[in-house]
Amino acid sequence: MNKLLIVGSVAFDAIETPFGKTDKILGGAGTFIGLAAANFDINSNIISVVGGDFPEKYLKLMQNHKVDISGIEIKKDEKTFFWSGKYRNDMNTRDTIATELNVLEKFDPKVSDAYQEADVLMLGNLSPTVQSSVIEQMKVRPKLIVMDTMNFWMDIMLSDLKNTISKVDVLTINDEEARQLSGEYSLVAAAQKILTMGPKYLIIKKGEHGALLFDKENIFFAPALPLKEVFDPTGAGDTFAGGFCGYLTKTNDFTFNNMKNAIIAGSALASFTVEKFGTERIQNLDKNEFYDRIQDFINLVDFQYPK
Amino acid sequence: MNKLLIVGSVAFDAIETPFGKTDKILGGAGTFIGLAAANFDINSNIISVVGGDFPEKYLKLMQNHKVDISGIEIKKDEKTFFWSGKYRNDMNTRDTIATELNVLEKFDPKVSDAYQEADVLMLGNLSPTVQSSVIEQMKVRPKLIVMDTMNFWMDIMLSDLKNTISKVDVLTINDEEARQLSGEYSLVAAAQKILTMGPKYLIIKKGEHGALLFDKENIFFAPALPLKEVFDPTGAGDTFAGGFCGYLTKTNDFTFNNMKNAIIAGSALASFTVEKFGTERIQNLDKNEFYDRIQDFINLVDFQYPK
Repeated sequence: MNKLLIVGSVAFDAIETPFGKTDKILGGAGTFIGLAAANFDINSNIISVVGGDFPEKYLKLMQNHKVDISGIEIKKDEKTFFWSGKYRNDMNTRDTIATELNVLEKFDPKVSDAYQEADVLMLGNLSPTVQSSVIEQMKVRPKLIVMDTMNFWMDIMLSDLKNTISKVDVLTINDEEARQLSGEYSLVAAAQKILTMGPKYLIIKKGEHGALLFDKENIFFAPALPLKEVFDPTGAGDTFAGGFCGYLTKTNDFTFNNMKNAIIAGSALASFTVEKFGTERIQNLDKNEFYDRIQDFINLVDFQYPK
Repeated sequence: MNKLLIVGSVAFDAIETPFGKTDKILGGAGTFIGLAAANFDINSNIISVVGGDFPEKYLKLMQNHKVDISGIEIKKDEKTFFWSGKYRNDMNTRDTIATELNVLEKFDPKVSDAYQEADVLMLGNLSPTVQSSVIEQMKVRPKLIVMDTMNFWMDIMLSDLKNTISKVDVLTINDEEARQLSGEYSLVAAAQKILTMGPKYLIIKKGEHGALLFDKENIFFAPALPLKEVFDPTGAGDTFAGGFCGYLTKTNDFTFNNMKNAIIAGSALASFTVEKFGTERIQNLDKNEFYDRIQDFINLVDFQYPK
């Protein structure tokens, strides 16, 4: 089976939305990426770190979803990364209440021999130097390296970030981050600039407004599914990335045309994540629900303009 | 030929954008609707009012675009409606600098016998009582009545507005207006509520984020074309409405499926309007450019997800 290597946080989240609030629940970019990628028939390995407070049941949950967790280091005397946030009524803006880096502060990922020869490498949002060190450790370059990042790293480590960006094939960021990184307001102009920084492909995530895929010649637009209720957006972007990478790992076709399908797969999976708190929905998804949702996306944008 | 009856302002605009500014140029909802509808092989008639200051050349321009202007009343001793606005750097927000209603203040549209038997009636953004009076004057109800409106009328004449809305087939508003009218944040929930107010179809315009078409069972999403440069957004919504109505008038098919094509036609035409000031681009559009742009929309959302 084809191999996906995921590097990303495995963490605790505490979330408050207009619909309710949670205690510490399972979260983290790597977690959502792994659970989303589990919807494809591939080998997923995850490199991450947690503390002694991380429950065995969460590790089991990931194993049950065919995610190899032998790359998750457990630092018994330390605490797991914890993020807490509160969404405003529009669900588009959130305030961070707490960020406790804990084990993540000195996260130094090691790519063991067993994790070499990945077909696809997905670098979840982490410090760009951490992301870069993983790329350096790969003895054979993966066929595709996908990288997520955020405005935080643009603010404090722009030069390191640009160095890491120069080494990857696909960069995923949101619209505001694309504007910040490029200094261009128009997303088309922003994409043209960012594509000169190294990546062959750029995905701009626009949340409820969908996502854009760019290469130097082409643009593809994937809508978001209009939902009656967005219950909790946490993890939607990581679920999207996991679905995108899972689909590409499985199909082993890294053309622009196949990336379109990968984006639809990622968008469909993300549309489930937002229906419940945390990983609750995505960890209990059956194949038919997923196929039906893909069909919803096909129908949503389908038209036959007469010649 | 099938007949489209347009009711809407014919006016002067003065526009300032980050790219430059204009003196008083041709503007008005009815103008953009008429020029957009002219791209289809139909009879367009427009009911409007201008002052003695309105240049003959603008009337000629509309005639040259096959818009019958015998329904434009000229009040020699009065002045034409004038709007002036300035767009901010993001091009999404604009400040109104001046609104001089002038002839529009007492606009009392008359539907002459020659204008009866329209297949489609397009009510551009005007006072809801003015819109309503046109509907009342139609001896035979048009096959389709489309209505545009704005938040201003929700603020000051909500009850009249709801009365007019109850009489039309298609309502077009933007996302913020849909939220205001329904009291729902989710656009899906908003649409469900608005569709109980009378219209069979609702179009929610999201500007650079595209447009949604709803009926009680279906949703269609049309993207906006990602543009490197938006030069002047003035008239984009009216161009969209004109393309939508022109397409439907021509094809004489008022099903959900055909409305999807009408929305693509409207979106394609609107994507030209924003490329230059005012009507400059849309009044100089050739058929091949239009067809090519339709193809851009087809390509933009095209994907073939494997079964």
